[in-house]
Amino acid sequence: MPKRDPGTGSENGIIQFLQDRYSKPDPSIKKGIGDDAAVIRRGKSGEYWLVTTDMLVEGIDFRLDWITPRQLGAKSISANLSDIAAMGGRPRFYTVSLGIPPRMPGRWISEFYRGLTQQGFRYGALLIGGDLSSVRESITVSIAMLGESVGRKVLYRSGGGRNDLLYVTGTLGRSDAGLRLLQQGVKRPGSRPGKQAIRAHLQPDPRCEAGLWLAQSGLVRCMMDLSDGLSADLPRLCAASGTSAEVDTSLLPVFREAEKWDLDPLHSALHGGEDFELLFAVKKNRAALFEKSYPRSLPPATRIGRMTGGGGEVWVISAGRNRQRLDSLGYDHFR
Amino acid sequence: MPKRDPGTGSENGIIQFLQDRYSKPDPSIKKGIGDDAAVIRRGKSGEYWLVTTDMLVEGIDFRLDWITPRQLGAKSISANLSDIAAMGGRPRFYTVSLGIPPRMPGRWISEFYRGLTQQGFRYGALLIGGDLSSVRESITVSIAMLGESVGRKVLYRSGGGRNDLLYVTGTLGRSDAGLRLLQQGVKRPGSRPGKQAIRAHLQPDPRCEAGLWLAQSGLVRCMMDLSDGLSADLPRLCAASGTSAEVDTSLLPVFREAEKWDLDPLHSALHGGEDFELLFAVKKNRAALFEKSYPRSLPPATRIGRMTGGGGEVWVISAGRNRQRLDSLGYDHFR
Repeated sequence: MPKRDPGTGSENGIIQFLQDRYSKPDPSIKKGIGDDAAVIRRGKSGEYWLVTTDMLVEGIDFRLDWITPRQLGAKSISANLSDIAAMGGRPRFYTVSLGIPPRMPGRWISEFYRGLTQQGFRYGALLIGGDLSSVRESITVSIAMLGESVGRKVLYRSGGGRNDLLYVTGTLGRSDAGLRLLQQGVKRPGSRPGKQAIRAHLQPDPRCEAGLWLAQSGLVRCMMDLSDGLSADLPRLCAASGTSAEVDTSLLPVFREAEKWDLDPLHSALHGGEDFELLFAVKKNRAALFEKSYPRSLPPATRIGRMTGGGGEVWVISAGRNRQRLDSLGYDHFR
Repeated sequence: MPKRDPGTGSENGIIQFLQDRYSKPDPSIKKGIGDDAAVIRRGKSGEYWLVTTDMLVEGIDFRLDWITPRQLGAKSISANLSDIAAMGGRPRFYTVSLGIPPRMPGRWISEFYRGLTQQGFRYGALLIGGDLSSVRESITVSIAMLGESVGRKVLYRSGGGRNDLLYVTGTLGRSDAGLRLLQQGVKRPGSRPGKQAIRAHLQPDPRCEAGLWLAQSGLVRCMMDLSDGLSADLPRLCAASGTSAEVDTSLLPVFREAEKWDLDPLHSALHGGEDFELLFAVKKNRAALFEKSYPRSLPPATRIGRMTGGGGEVWVISAGRNRQRLDSLGYDHFR
């Protein structure tokens, strides 16, 4: 029986509450609340629309002394682009609601929209409207995006199964390393890895091309993007697929250069947010075919573990140690 | 030549800047920035999608001591429903981004979503997704809505012409009267008009049915909804249509009961925001037909003036006085 209210617990708890209560079946909604984007049927034939929204709040999600308005515009839309990528879709249109203090300079506003629209354009998405509001304090950006399926091939968080192999694109923990550098007061690092880390945090590149290929390949069973960190997101993939998972830490594509700054690359890879890489599962007997056919032009896909039977639990295996339960240390807005 | 930045001027100025710069023609976009909703082609045939977004910010757009969470949910979505109504479309789907302080009670959250989804459902719109964020201070709600045209009949702000007659639905200034009552500390007025006024402010009823009829009638040339007040919105309709306008104050359907509370009903009707009534123009030689065929079951449509030649100026005529320029005293976030 659905609960009366979501309590004050956690983001997952609130979303679960909404999903239980409001994902009523309607023939036009193929997937409602609870995945990276909603999936809407347009008619008996034709492509699906993918719909997603994200909100960024100053002081919680970004700081104006770290990010330029142009970078903020680009970053704001990247979360939405990544959601569409995670469904295997193609970004098309977006609206932006922007809340700014009344005396914000015109130059700031134009730079924000420049960053936003350039990043959108790069991935094929066009600005079609929005709303402007004044705020007293924290700048707030909320973007809603429409994407489109290609050949109706959409990937969900559900669909994975026991013994599927788990993969991620790119490097994990790089954005977190960038955040730590900024927290240490390093805004303009001299080293190449330092620059990469800060760029990953301030100007993430969503994996739209990879997402599209993965959906088209027919080899992927389920997918999501990594926005809150592997330890927060992998349990969501498992819960949706009705599995648990084991991650082999020795396989993780960590951002090793972070060691130089006294950071633990493994910790960042497991718990750091905003990498906007893709996490997906491939059936074991198709893994060899997948690894052979995955294009070299895309960000590398790395096998990190496997799905197991069970109910949404994630375990890590490290050489010479017993397997350990991976608790989410990723960011939760309501914990 | 488009300006480099929008200055710090006004909401209109910023929107004009965005429109000049970003409403690039794309074959799939029938109407981009600058109307109540964007209009997207889905293919060579089939209906258009209408897309709109609105943001409400605590302390600017609402106060928690005046509005219950259920009313806030309903009010948040009403602005979007009204935008779809203003295009003559049918609401279908929406996402909601909600920013709330970390310790918001679960009961508040469930009541908010209850009000939101009940109001959406009443007008045929279904919740398909969203985002949750924590905020430090002001609760922020941003909703994006997808609507659909019916028979591809969509009404724009543009399309009006000289000598067209102007009409509004319902009563103007009632929401403003409700706001004034609340500001005077009257939360539970005893009188029926008082209750009506506060209800109009806290739980507005968007004119979806009327909007749909008006678009289907084939008699309406342009339309928008009244969200910022007649003195702010009518110049926008005129600017889009390349006209000016004259409003006859003796014709305005003011909320006369507001006199009892020492309010000026005419002032509220001209400048008060959030009535969410529809404002539209009918060609003069079709006005009689329009008035005869407009259904009595819908909120009354009242003729309030006419469009004239010129460039976006609005004049008021009052009995026994020279015509006067109507300056916008409606709310502008950035003035």
